[in-house]
Amino acid sequence: MSFLNDLLQSITERGRALTDFGALTQKATPVDQIAELSARLLSAIGEASGLATAAEILTRYEALDDSGKGAFFERLLHEFGPDVERLRDMARDFAETGDWYTANRLHAESEPGRQKLFRRLNQASGGTIALIRMRSDLLDAMKDNPDLQIVDRDFRHLFGSWFNRGFLELRKIDWQTSAAILEKIIKYEAVHEITDWQDLRGRIDPPDRRLYAFFHPRIQDEPLIFVEVALMQDMPSDIRSVLNPDRQILPPDKAKAAIFYSISDCQPGLRGISFGNFLIKQVIEELRGELPFIDRLATLSPVRGLADWLKEMAEQETSSADSKLSRALGRIEELAIDDWWTDEAAEAELRAVLMPLAAHYFVTARSRRGTPLDPISRFHLGNGARLERINWLADTSGAGLKSAYGIMVNYLYKLDEIEKNHERFVIDGTVNASAGVKKLARSDLKPLEKLPEQELGEAS
Amino acid sequence: MSFLNDLLQSITERGRALTDFGALTQKATPVDQIAELSARLLSAIGEASGLATAAEILTRYEALDDSGKGAFFERLLHEFGPDVERLRDMARDFAETGDWYTANRLHAESEPGRQKLFRRLNQASGGTIALIRMRSDLLDAMKDNPDLQIVDRDFRHLFGSWFNRGFLELRKIDWQTSAAILEKIIKYEAVHEITDWQDLRGRIDPPDRRLYAFFHPRIQDEPLIFVEVALMQDMPSDIRSVLNPDRQILPPDKAKAAIFYSISDCQPGLRGISFGNFLIKQVIEELRGELPFIDRLATLSPVRGLADWLKEMAEQETSSADSKLSRALGRIEELAIDDWWTDEAAEAELRAVLMPLAAHYFVTARSRRGTPLDPISRFHLGNGARLERINWLADTSGAGLKSAYGIMVNYLYKLDEIEKNHERFVIDGTVNASAGVKKLARSDLKPLEKLPEQELGEAS
Amino acid sequence: MSFLNDLLQSITERGRALTDFGALTQKATPVDQIAELSARLLSAIGEASGLATAAEILTRYEALDDSGKGAFFERLLHEFGPDVERLRDMARDFAETGDWYTANRLHAESEPGRQKLFRRLNQASGGTIALIRMRSDLLDAMKDNPDLQIVDRDFRHLFGSWFNRGFLELRKIDWQTSAAILEKIIKYEAVHEITDWQDLRGRIDPPDRRLYAFFHPRIQDEPLIFVEVALMQDMPSDIRSVLNPDRQILPPDKAKAAIFYSISDCQPGLRGISFGNFLIKQVIEELRGELPFIDRLATLSPVRGLADWLKEMAEQETSSADSKLSRALGRIEELAIDDWWTDEAAEAELRAVLMPLAAHYFVTARSRRGTPLDPISRFHLGNGARLERINWLADTSGAGLKSAYGIMVNYLYKLDEIEKNHERFVIDGTVNASAGVKKLARSDLKPLEKLPEQELGEAS
Amino acid sequence: MSFLNDLLQSITERGRALTDFGALTQKATPVDQIAELSARLLSAIGEASGLATAAEILTRYEALDDSGKGAFFERLLHEFGPDVERLRDMARDFAETGDWYTANRLHAESEPGRQKLFRRLNQASGGTIALIRMRSDLLDAMKDNPDLQIVDRDFRHLFGSWFNRGFLELRKIDWQTSAAILEKIIKYEAVHEITDWQDLRGRIDPPDRRLYAFFHPRIQDEPLIFVEVALMQDMPSDIRSVLNPDRQILPPDKAKAAIFYSISDCQPGLRGISFGNFLIKQVIEELRGELPFIDRLATLSPVRGLADWLKEMAEQETSSADSKLSRALGRIEELAIDDWWTDEAAEAELRAVLMPLAAHYFVTARSRRGTPLDPISRFHLGNGARLERINWLADTSGAGLKSAYGIMVNYLYKLDEIEKNHERFVIDGTVNASAGVKKLARSDLKPLEKLPEQELGEAS
Repeated sequence: MSFLNDLLQSITERGRALTDFGALTQKATPVDQIAELSARLLSAIGEASGLATAAEILTRYEALDDSGKGAFFERLLHEFGPDVERLRDMARDFAETGDWYTANRLHAESEPGRQKLFRRLNQASGGTIALIRMRSDLLDAMKDNPDLQIVDRDFRHLFGSWFNRGFLELRKIDWQTSAAILEKIIKYEAVHEITDWQDLRGRIDPPDRRLYAFFHPRIQDEPLIFVEVALMQDMPSDIRSVLNPDRQILPPDKAKAAIFYSISDCQPGLRGISFGNFLIKQVIEELRGELPFIDRLATLSPVRGLADWLKEMAEQETSSADSKLSRALGRIEELAIDDWWTDEAAEAELRAVLMPLAAHYFVTARSRRGTPLDPISRFHLGNGARLERINWLADTSGAGLKSAYGIMVNYLYKLDEIEKNHERFVIDGTVNASAGVKKLARSDLKPLEKLPEQELGEAS
Repeated sequence: MSFLNDLLQSITERGRALTDFGALTQKATPVDQIAELSARLLSAIGEASGLATAAEILTRYEALDDSGKGAFFERLLHEFGPDVERLRDMARDFAETGDWYTANRLHAESEPGRQKLFRRLNQASGGTIALIRMRSDLLDAMKDNPDLQIVDRDFRHLFGSWFNRGFLELRKIDWQTSAAILEKIIKYEAVHEITDWQDLRGRIDPPDRRLYAFFHPRIQDEPLIFVEVALMQDMPSDIRSVLNPDRQILPPDKAKAAIFYSISDCQPGLRGISFGNFLIKQVIEELRGELPFIDRLATLSPVRGLADWLKEMAEQETSSADSKLSRALGRIEELAIDDWWTDEAAEAELRAVLMPLAAHYFVTARSRRGTPLDPISRFHLGNGARLERINWLADTSGAGLKSAYGIMVNYLYKLDEIEKNHERFVIDGTVNASAGVKKLARSDLKPLEKLPEQELGEAS
Repeated sequence: MSFLNDLLQSITERGRALTDFGALTQKATPVDQIAELSARLLSAIGEASGLATAAEILTRYEALDDSGKGAFFERLLHEFGPDVERLRDMARDFAETGDWYTANRLHAESEPGRQKLFRRLNQASGGTIALIRMRSDLLDAMKDNPDLQIVDRDFRHLFGSWFNRGFLELRKIDWQTSAAILEKIIKYEAVHEITDWQDLRGRIDPPDRRLYAFFHPRIQDEPLIFVEVALMQDMPSDIRSVLNPDRQILPPDKAKAAIFYSISDCQPGLRGISFGNFLIKQVIEELRGELPFIDRLATLSPVRGLADWLKEMAEQETSSADSKLSRALGRIEELAIDDWWTDEAAEAELRAVLMPLAAHYFVTARSRRGTPLDPISRFHLGNGARLERINWLADTSGAGLKSAYGIMVNYLYKLDEIEKNHERFVIDGTVNASAGVKKLARSDLKPLEKLPEQELGEAS
Repeated sequence: MSFLNDLLQSITERGRALTDFGALTQKATPVDQIAELSARLLSAIGEASGLATAAEILTRYEALDDSGKGAFFERLLHEFGPDVERLRDMARDFAETGDWYTANRLHAESEPGRQKLFRRLNQASGGTIALIRMRSDLLDAMKDNPDLQIVDRDFRHLFGSWFNRGFLELRKIDWQTSAAILEKIIKYEAVHEITDWQDLRGRIDPPDRRLYAFFHPRIQDEPLIFVEVALMQDMPSDIRSVLNPDRQILPPDKAKAAIFYSISDCQPGLRGISFGNFLIKQVIEELRGELPFIDRLATLSPVRGLADWLKEMAEQETSSADSKLSRALGRIEELAIDDWWTDEAAEAELRAVLMPLAAHYFVTARSRRGTPLDPISRFHLGNGARLERINWLADTSGAGLKSAYGIMVNYLYKLDEIEKNHERFVIDGTVNASAGVKKLARSDLKPLEKLPEQELGEAS
């Protein structure tokens, strides 16, 4: 890799000598200049001047502030799409006499110039990671300017090809791993924060812990996604038992369960370019090879959106006589969100109200698009896992209490069922849940009974 | 890599259990079955059944004979293009109200299903190399069926992305290299045949020899292209001095010239997917780092098409009084193509006639498309090299005499000029030749003087 | 390694500049000069001049012919031992007042200068392999000059430390291995010759074959010893079934037996520096890890010395009436050593005579030192293996017939017994043999019955 | 390595099953038991029981407290030396009739059993590092019990062979290095403390910093010695400019000087087993290859023992009238050792007194053994470096002020002189110093003039 970069830089240097970027400086704005360079890059034919121009564009882009970047994305949208006039003429002809041959030309003509631009930027040394950051900026800008989705489609198309799983490389991360990568793990852990190098060591060095990450050959030393695994005697029902530094270290050959307790995407610019499912499968394959006696492969996963959904449900409770949920949530607020669970009486009472609703949230509730509401649930069910258990007071950290009143869940991966589950979930959205979870979901739902079933689906 | 393959195979196994390929066996022909499977693959949603189907298609395809493969390509052409009817409707609408948003949809709709099919086949274990072989078959089939170019465009599009130079890995091949790779080098050498392991050793083990190859991460142990290099004291004028096993071995730090004397493409299925230029540049960079005292980087290259072109020229000589070339070629035939050069008188005479014409062939003659006639020349000039010298009786092997009356040429790579040369050649087709070659090209061209200049350009 | 060699060579170069080897050339003989240089090396204090002198000695030594080498060894014996005069004085004092402190000095004083000399030669670049070759020469010279054993003891002492198994590195040799190493495997195979690269490939590339070798960090690319393994369904009774290139290739996970069918020492200069047993153990460990279902680990081993021993036995048969063995051997000679076994009647008859004697040879016969006569048997029994089976007509190649009338044997490694067997064999020489072999050894020994038991032991 | 350890452990396990350590527990003391086990190990013949016994000894030894270890060393001294009685008999014979043959036997007989014991302990998994720790304990115990030097000689003899530089492996340590090794670097840095991971990063990650370490194949992940290098524009005269985190980072190709500013031995148990000089040479070779434009290779080294020596000198000043040095040191104490240098007047005055004396300390003063007093000076002069410059107020940290009143020195490595310097230093102790240092050493030495020259040499 570093050799390739050396070569690219040396060609770029030679290209820079052939290219005059000075003339640009008279132009009105930096964004104008970048747009001008981008147009040049599209028509450039020399390799060296092309690389020099690509490098120049990326450098200048990085120097823009948010509004400059937004303006550049607007230019990408308006000036680097297909030539609509030409395309309309061609479409008119095609409408009359089109066949496969001309379809091919229509396809070529309708390709936005942006794709070619991104491909050429990708050739530059460091181009891939620069484009990942650019898309991350774009995703931010899209919040205010949804039209930019058109630009994002081109990124998704290209990233889908470049980050094809055939190129991904699984590496085990441990105390033998380079500091350059380990500091990235500390930085990117998004589920259960790693506070310092000592904390990191506790996640990767003890014999009952594993961490696996995916890498891409063109962006060395930058993990794309990683998963943390705990080897245990059984499927845990709370996160404290997993993270406890004073636990008895389990010899790996005594482990019965491998628990995926944290999965972190590292590159916001790769959102929606999915390789998490493939990571899970590779890690399962790896663990089965190394530790054939393990018979439970499961997660201990946080829950997203439950608290918000419950609040929404509470607002829809109409009769004050039957507002169990509202009262329950009120009780929690009285006792303070961080502390209510230490009150034994309250805890037992709230458990009785909230656990069935949580089961309902996972098993029955649906978004308008018909999918489960919790993105983590969609991910694991989509991979073919089964929702195995809902755990009360599993995460009593501030974040855990706030987003899900301390509830966490286990998804279980049964190797001979995951493909079938996956296909059923993809085809008809069937949520695969254990008997226990299903029973809980069917239990007393008084607080919700007034809600017509379909409205429930609309909730998110 | 092998780990990835293990995983793919284990998912494929599980997919096979979910999929019923038996029903197909009632179908009329194997090609029908493969087409049916391909249609299934396009609509498949499960990962495991998708992989199993892809593997099944590739296995069944490999078992077809040439006519079966041709029939399958026909199906790809007719049944896996875009839906022309739908596309015409969409084009009609676009012709009236089209804008970027709808251009995007037009682009998506006009994409042939083949591309998606190839992408999914590529996911299978061994899919990439299988598709390279499939394209190799397609290129053969195209000779009889030019319409198949439409299918080839999809291959080219995808291969261009998958074999992006960012993924290519340069490796030095030497006596430390694995036997698995070395046997491929023996097999793929296409310019100066390697007869056995001992001969191979002579190309890679002596300190004055180098061999570099490009590899791709998804097809390990299969070189894509390689170049053989001889370290010498000067630019050689014949191939005997390069290949001579009894030569004095030159200590690398005494070398003044690095000679690229053989470049072999290994995968016919990657024809037109260019990385040769990048190979040359990486090797130059590598040699300059290791041997800073080398100041001549050049080739000793065979000549393609010269003998045919001379024969064509001879046929166009009208006046028998002035038919130097015809007489010259006749003289060669009299003396026998393999031996004429050993006749001293004939050799001197023929040299006087043929060398200026050879220079003309390189410098002035052009194809209808305006490019030099010799593909090797197009390659090196396109890389920014200079045609430095034309060498008489440089290759007196049968093949060398037959294709170019023993002539070989040197292309010189001057690092501070290659980018400029490259750009000029790409822009206006300027052939960069040394003063010597140019002078030779301007010398007495009696045999050709009756030919109008433009006809010359039409010659090939 | 190559970096270390670069450094050593660059220091050596600098040392050469500080050292004058010219003055030596006036000396009478090359051996005198080397002896002079060796004396200098012992007293040298500078590192660079030391390295230069060591390199000079090794180069000059290599250039000697056999008689020169022999003369040099004589000098090593007489001039580079301890200073006997000084040592006698010291011994006289010690005899009166010796204690640990002075014992220490006695030990230091009695160390031959040779050891220091060899240690310093070993520092030179390539010194280790040069000393291995020197000892190989010494072992040859010892045949005529047994006094040189004194010199050999110093080699053994140092080699035992340098080739400590902690430094040995096990590598699996396969078709991925470098040609540089593979050509050595072809060269060093000593049991069943490898005829060419294709034959080699048949030993390492099929999935039912393995080859493992030991390497040493200071002599890269030179295997020290290797073992070839065949994965089979059962313990084979002849070598044809092992080497048969047309056999059905067995998938490794179907194998029940791993057969060590060839073990080759590569460096004659390391004779008696034992690591073969450690190789066997590492390979067993490796195979058990990779192929847990294999339950028979055994050899198919040639037999050494049996034919000679039988001839000796035959000569001792006194009564012509009872000379079964003599008649049997005579019969073989009549029918020709390469062919007798194709005569069915003769074969059955000879089998009845020879097989019990072979069992006797292994189980009962002993050298004067009380050890089994066959060195291969000593090796495997010493490793803790059991003599499992004696196979009739197992190797009908010329060599096999000549040394052992075609007999080969299986030694079986039972993991939970090898340590105990090893200890018993080392302690009291107990030959661990299967019930079958023991029974055979007890069967009719008419031809030998006149021999008093102890004479048998004296036979070799 | 880990594979080897697995094997050793599995053989050890099998050996443990064959061995009964229980009987020992009745013995009086743990030390008795270890001595008993050691005696068994010397006579053990089985490999597995040998390994099990070695492992048992090492485990039990580690569990001893200091006095237990001291007692064990006493046993090693008295019970595991040569058999003095037997040896006296043998010496008596040798005194009369000794020759080389019997010298050999005398050598063997006089070898202490300890050496064999240590060799066998070294076979155990983890044996090498355990013996290094054992020797570290021994060096501590020797302070109170100088007789133990006899035991230490055996360690030195064996370690000299095991840590032969041919086995040492140079590795560049950078931010790509594993955390497992980096934490050791933090721990072992002995000259300029590394406070945390961020500080460490500043030593290895910036392009103008390098760190190289030696490793040994049998003790992976444990550096033996390392050197930190700063690339600079010139030879620095104080440590602040080297360690300054806010300095301008120098691009390596602009560097003119490579400064070795910290060399740390990592294993106290390897004291006196010298490979530091070899490290310096390898690093110089490496830097010259990578950065050919660097023309100054030098150290910035602390000074050991100067303050003590000056105090001693001051005590020897007899006439109060002429006690410059005493007054100077008194002045420093008045102003406080950590602060005096901030007083401009005092600083100038003290510089005039102390700098010539420092030069004298390096150039002229000698220990009783005739060597320079400062061990760091002995090391670099012994490597062939030149004492280039003495720097005033170069290290104003507490430690620097305390040991040498803030003085540091540069040793310069001139590649074409180091071998010659080395040989002269080794032969006659010549201190190679620059003209500047020599001049300083000859300047006014009033405070010392009463001291007879020879007493100076006796000072340390």
